[in-house]
Amino acid sequence: MNAVTKTLTVDLGERSYPIYIGPGLLGDPRIYREHIPGRQVMVVTNETVAPLYLERVCAALGGYQLARVILPDGERYKSLEIWQRIITALLEARFDRQCTVLALGGGVVGDMAGFAAASYQRGVNFVQVPTTLLSQVDSSVGGKTGVNHPLGKNMIGAFYQPRCVIADTASLDTLDDRQLSAGLAEVIKYGLIDDLPFFEWLERNMEPLLAREADALSHAIERSCLDKARVVAADELESGRRALLNLGHTFGHAIETGMGYGEWLHGEAVAVGMCMAADLSRRLGWFDMDAQARVVDLVARARLPVAPPPDLDGARLLELMAVDKKVQQGRMRLVLMQGMGHSLVTDQFDSGLLRATLSGYGRNDVC
Amino acid sequence: MNAVTKTLTVDLGERSYPIYIGPGLLGDPRIYREHIPGRQVMVVTNETVAPLYLERVCAALGGYQLARVILPDGERYKSLEIWQRIITALLEARFDRQCTVLALGGGVVGDMAGFAAASYQRGVNFVQVPTTLLSQVDSSVGGKTGVNHPLGKNMIGAFYQPRCVIADTASLDTLDDRQLSAGLAEVIKYGLIDDLPFFEWLERNMEPLLAREADALSHAIERSCLDKARVVAADELESGRRALLNLGHTFGHAIETGMGYGEWLHGEAVAVGMCMAADLSRRLGWFDMDAQARVVDLVARARLPVAPPPDLDGARLLELMAVDKKVQQGRMRLVLMQGMGHSLVTDQFDSGLLRATLSGYGRNDVC
Repeated sequence: MNAVTKTLTVDLGERSYPIYIGPGLLGDPRIYREHIPGRQVMVVTNETVAPLYLERVCAALGGYQLARVILPDGERYKSLEIWQRIITALLEARFDRQCTVLALGGGVVGDMAGFAAASYQRGVNFVQVPTTLLSQVDSSVGGKTGVNHPLGKNMIGAFYQPRCVIADTASLDTLDDRQLSAGLAEVIKYGLIDDLPFFEWLERNMEPLLAREADALSHAIERSCLDKARVVAADELESGRRALLNLGHTFGHAIETGMGYGEWLHGEAVAVGMCMAADLSRRLGWFDMDAQARVVDLVARARLPVAPPPDLDGARLLELMAVDKKVQQGRMRLVLMQGMGHSLVTDQFDSGLLRATLSGYGRNDVC
Repeated sequence: MNAVTKTLTVDLGERSYPIYIGPGLLGDPRIYREHIPGRQVMVVTNETVAPLYLERVCAALGGYQLARVILPDGERYKSLEIWQRIITALLEARFDRQCTVLALGGGVVGDMAGFAAASYQRGVNFVQVPTTLLSQVDSSVGGKTGVNHPLGKNMIGAFYQPRCVIADTASLDTLDDRQLSAGLAEVIKYGLIDDLPFFEWLERNMEPLLAREADALSHAIERSCLDKARVVAADELESGRRALLNLGHTFGHAIETGMGYGEWLHGEAVAVGMCMAADLSRRLGWFDMDAQARVVDLVARARLPVAPPPDLDGARLLELMAVDKKVQQGRMRLVLMQGMGHSLVTDQFDSGLLRATLSGYGRNDVC
């Protein structure tokens, strides 16, 4: 570790763990040695990340008995079949209950490797090395793991905490522009949930972030992780406040499912979802026109879409939202905004206004 | 509930839950109402149990939105494919995160329904209604859920606690003799682990148990659950003392895997495993001839096998044991006996003596 490394702690009692943020960390043997207790490590990565970072990680894991699984890249492979491939690799390598599963890659790799760690022999050690902005700010905090089912996204999984998260900011240099923007969608989300100063910081710093300036990225990652860790620490199993983190996600999942997994990036769908949440909040009288315009403007400046694809009509989106797991006791719950920098979870909204947002937004009256 | 119902509590802090033991409980609406918080219940059962008890359970669940999955019967169906069938049924019924999965049946149903509850939407409520002696004394306490993989038994799963366990002793009236004996294997195990008075009670009461006398069965279930709950409460995640519950299981799993799942009942394999553990303990000088004879005698009186099938030779058994998950850091750990009514977990044994037990036991020098 070096001077610019930041360390946060996600406070979950016995399951607390640190997040390390800084350049070059994935090649540093010291963090691995501190947090990997056994001698067997299964590195799970994908075809895109493997040529870039796999050897460096393996070199830093010198002294451990290593095995590797290289998955195909993409959300469409976040499936039970691919998850089984990790489990089978663990069995074929004869890995025992003291082994560690290390996820090297983005959110898809992290979700699948995490669920494999949660379910192999009823749970083994798990370490996350996220290499995308999205996974560094989002999937590495909160312990959500899972895979998709043809009938719904993230329908199978577990809450399972890693031993540590290693967010190497230098790994973002190889990220393509679309992935970087997708990560920024989640960053913007934290500002909207309950951190107005951070939202305003993002309004001032969107260009440095898009230019991948190290200081700006590092600050955005740290602040996002802090915001998320605060929410998660208060509500590990998502019974209440944690649902705020789903801002934009119920709309977004409907878009992802409707387009078929892998067409839209998760962050792109969430970006549109936040714009739709702002639109519905405005229709409910909770959010003014200016606030809505600021949200749409910042999302657009992050080079993200602000409206759903034209071939998904309102009725279809509503149908897709109805099967989403945020539906509780038959009532749909959404995260909506009550003023800039303040969101809430609610099922108290007029379904006619929701239909108006789904049918009209991005098609005529706003964009 | 009536006067003869016994209630135990498994003490696991926030995850504590009660076990109800008594005749007729599965048809009593009151326990369900007390422990099922949402309105959706998915009853998971199998083809054998469904005609006997499904309607009675569904009648007692009047007022809930019910769905059912009826699985094929047998250990060979404890697979990922069948587990997926439960998940798909939950999605097709549009069950939400507040739903409850209720397992009605033996250990296989409980293990699969439990893993489905643990992994559906990252965890929903779970209620167990075990209908075999084995599941009433064993799988209903401890939170182990899981499915088999072609490369090993119970290799995929989670630790997941039920909201409550309802052990209806009247359901044992329909159990076939072979299943009753398989359950008695686990009952005997508790005596051997650390409850000599219970072992001696079993020596005096094996005949009443085989005759399914209600008082005897009820006492055996309660005592077994208490013995297991005490061990589990001290060690929820199986890091130490809980491993004692695996007495006979490392040998037993090798037999089950070697024969192909479903040929031998789990309890039958464990019965032989306990006899083999007694044999190895005697070879190590920890257990005398008389003690070994008492173990083999009680197992035989419970109408259980005391030796492995002749077509599984010692070398094959050793190979199968090596992949078992109780292997830690490359060393095989076994539960062995140090005197009657006292077991311990150890990797300190001569592997030559283990080979002698695996090759010789039941083939020449003992039986």
